[in-house]
Amino acid sequence: MRLLSRFFSPRLEATAHCDLPCGVYDPAQARIEAESVKAVQEKYQNNEDPEFRTRAVLIAEQRSDLVKHHLWVLWTDYFKPPHFEKYPHLHDLFNRATKAAGASGTKGSMDPATGAALLDLIAEIDKIFWETKQG
Amino acid sequence: MRLLSRFFSPRLEATAHCDLPCGVYDPAQARIEAESVKAVQEKYQNNEDPEFRTRAVLIAEQRSDLVKHHLWVLWTDYFKPPHFEKYPHLHDLFNRATKAAGASGTKGSMDPATGAALLDLIAEIDKIFWETKQG
Amino acid sequence: MRLLSRFFSPRLEATAHCDLPCGVYDPAQARIEAESVKAVQEKYQNNEDPEFRTRAVLIAEQRSDLVKHHLWVLWTDYFKPPHFEKYPHLHDLFNRATKAAGASGTKGSMDPATGAALLDLIAEIDKIFWETKQG
Amino acid sequence: MRLLSRFFSPRLEATAHCDLPCGVYDPAQARIEAESVKAVQEKYQNNEDPEFRTRAVLIAEQRSDLVKHHLWVLWTDYFKPPHFEKYPHLHDLFNRATKAAGASGTKGSMDPATGAALLDLIAEIDKIFWETKQG
Amino acid sequence: MRLLSRFFSPRLEATAHCDLPCGVYDPAQARIEAESVKAVQEKYQNNEDPEFRTRAVLIAEQRSDLVKHHLWVLWTDYFKPPHFEKYPHLHDLFNRATKAAGASGTKGSMDPATGAALLDLIAEIDKIFWETKQG
Amino acid sequence: MRLLSRFFSPRLEATAHCDLPCGVYDPAQARIEAESVKAVQEKYQNNEDPEFRTRAVLIAEQRSDLVKHHLWVLWTDYFKPPHFEKYPHLHDLFNRATKAAGASGTKGSMDPATGAALLDLIAEIDKIFWETKQG
Repeated sequence: MRLLSRFFSPRLEATAHCDLPCGVYDPAQARIEAESVKAVQEKYQNNEDPEFRTRAVLIAEQRSDLVKHHLWVLWTDYFKPPHFEKYPHLHDLFNRATKAAGASGTKGSMDPATGAALLDLIAEIDKIFWETKQG
Repeated sequence: MRLLSRFFSPRLEATAHCDLPCGVYDPAQARIEAESVKAVQEKYQNNEDPEFRTRAVLIAEQRSDLVKHHLWVLWTDYFKPPHFEKYPHLHDLFNRATKAAGASGTKGSMDPATGAALLDLIAEIDKIFWETKQG
Repeated sequence: MRLLSRFFSPRLEATAHCDLPCGVYDPAQARIEAESVKAVQEKYQNNEDPEFRTRAVLIAEQRSDLVKHHLWVLWTDYFKPPHFEKYPHLHDLFNRATKAAGASGTKGSMDPATGAALLDLIAEIDKIFWETKQG
Repeated sequence: MRLLSRFFSPRLEATAHCDLPCGVYDPAQARIEAESVKAVQEKYQNNEDPEFRTRAVLIAEQRSDLVKHHLWVLWTDYFKPPHFEKYPHLHDLFNRATKAAGASGTKGSMDPATGAALLDLIAEIDKIFWETKQG
Repeated sequence: MRLLSRFFSPRLEATAHCDLPCGVYDPAQARIEAESVKAVQEKYQNNEDPEFRTRAVLIAEQRSDLVKHHLWVLWTDYFKPPHFEKYPHLHDLFNRATKAAGASGTKGSMDPATGAALLDLIAEIDKIFWETKQG
Repeated sequence: MRLLSRFFSPRLEATAHCDLPCGVYDPAQARIEAESVKAVQEKYQNNEDPEFRTRAVLIAEQRSDLVKHHLWVLWTDYFKPPHFEKYPHLHDLFNRATKAAGASGTKGSMDPATGAALLDLIAEIDKIFWETKQG
């Protein structure tokens, strides 16, 4: 957060604060869980054992929840008003990314294409995240 | 979700889907936890016992997390693109409401004013929520 | 809790205490989760896709757990000895309601009738709850 | 559960069911967590370091929650109507035991006497539990 | 932990410390969850209802996770360097036991033989645990 | 696991296996949480507000738990017997690293030196991890 004050000087001073848990953020947390979802989906497609498939659905559900959680934390706790001004589509991007880890995405389908689509959206967020860190 | 199809007919058809866990949403879940946060803050102000205060801070932290979670679920799982078009400030409203349950709000201060501010933001969301349900 | 002291004056004075997290209780928390269970059961009956059905069973299990948790909190944390004296069947009602969200109820069967039975029991608890709040 | 059918033959046949997660219950789960609470309380009394005390309060809170959870599971999932008929004070015993792990007990005070009182109540439940198992 | 200092006198003095949550450990916690896993596996084999089987897989997964967690806590929080010197195979034993509650064990198969194998490994740990407690 | 011993010839074959949830591992998960712990410790040292300090202790406790969890998963789920043969100190390294996130490390002290020591141990694990991946 300290880096930010360099680049968004006037406005961010107003909103900047010392979030106790906020100094360390990394979209890698969401990405790793999403990679896990996609890997589970691929294994699901190659294995017709019903026990295995039940476990795969269960694990994809849990990991998708973790993706949503990590993205929500970034959206609420890391990104500040100046970021949303600079990247006007950022709200929508996060909303679509979290939806892509939900019922219309990796929860609702074991098709690895949904996992890949989720990873693409996280990559977009990751790019913006590092831009804001580098100012 | 069925009600929605009446009002946002063309566009929502495209995005509507049968979210398995989504039929039942209610901002009351976030509101009840936020009321709990505010009540804990008030008790904190009236009790200087250190054990009590430690527990109050801990519980306010947990309840604030629950507020954030319930709001995030509404934002991602309940609200759809047509809602965001109709209420252009809805993204920002949710972002501010979840921040108000974080380090710059009810987590970072035991002042009941932060709990009251959080409840006001949830009331704004609640109003929009019921408008979308009634079409 | 403050309201209670008006109605159960002598006895409750003895048992009343300042539960830090107890000022805010609402059976709506259990009801909302139970409505979710019933909605999931109905969708399960109308969809034979195995992935969907696995997710429905999983979600009904989780939501039933939440119902049990919310009811247990009411039974232990909100209701006090004077309530149990005034409503002698209250222990049994809570025991049956939490069982109705378990293996003999909404966990053990995806029949929406179990969800409806659970909601009826919660409605009975809700009625008593608001009677005790209004004195 | 199979043992039960020996002793409560007529009545329990009606209520007996194959709870998937219910074959294995043991009050030791609640007792171990309660012993932990009491040990933490004792260490709290012997250590005035504020960091240590904050952690002690936090851990006592978490472990007390686990005690409540394990007791609630026994009360709802293990004990059946015939047990409550045979031990008419069992509802009240569980209600007092779970309250003893709450704000009026081990959560609300770091006095090891509250931990000891909780352990006594769990010992009463334990005694009844094993009577019902031995039939 | 206090008992230990009697037996491992020179070395343990150096490593002994007052772990706030560590005074109370008991391998019974892992054993009870593992017994639950094995019971669920047996019921799974005797019931072909798909809803029941989905729940059984889900519960075995959760209970296996609890077994792993309880074993990890023992391995990291209870056992100290002098124990690992005295029992050179203890690291490997814990590694095999936690793997036996994972994908190559009770998570990956509903065969009760995997539950029995897990219980055997926990019994080995339990034997060492009580030897270290008795000095 | 039994299959593994068959094709342990080239090393990468050795690490490939079809554990359903295991295809994706990354020590970054533990590192990110440990960086958060250290950042929280530093902020604690620079802020004497009692509410802030209570929250800092609480968050360090939670994040330390996450570090332990992520490391335990690597130790049990990712690393296999051939790894432990090749790196004979790996068991001890993981045991020390998880202890370093416990009562004798980042839980028991808010000194950032404990956070730094934890990060060093994770870096050692990370180095070995990537060696085994590149096989």
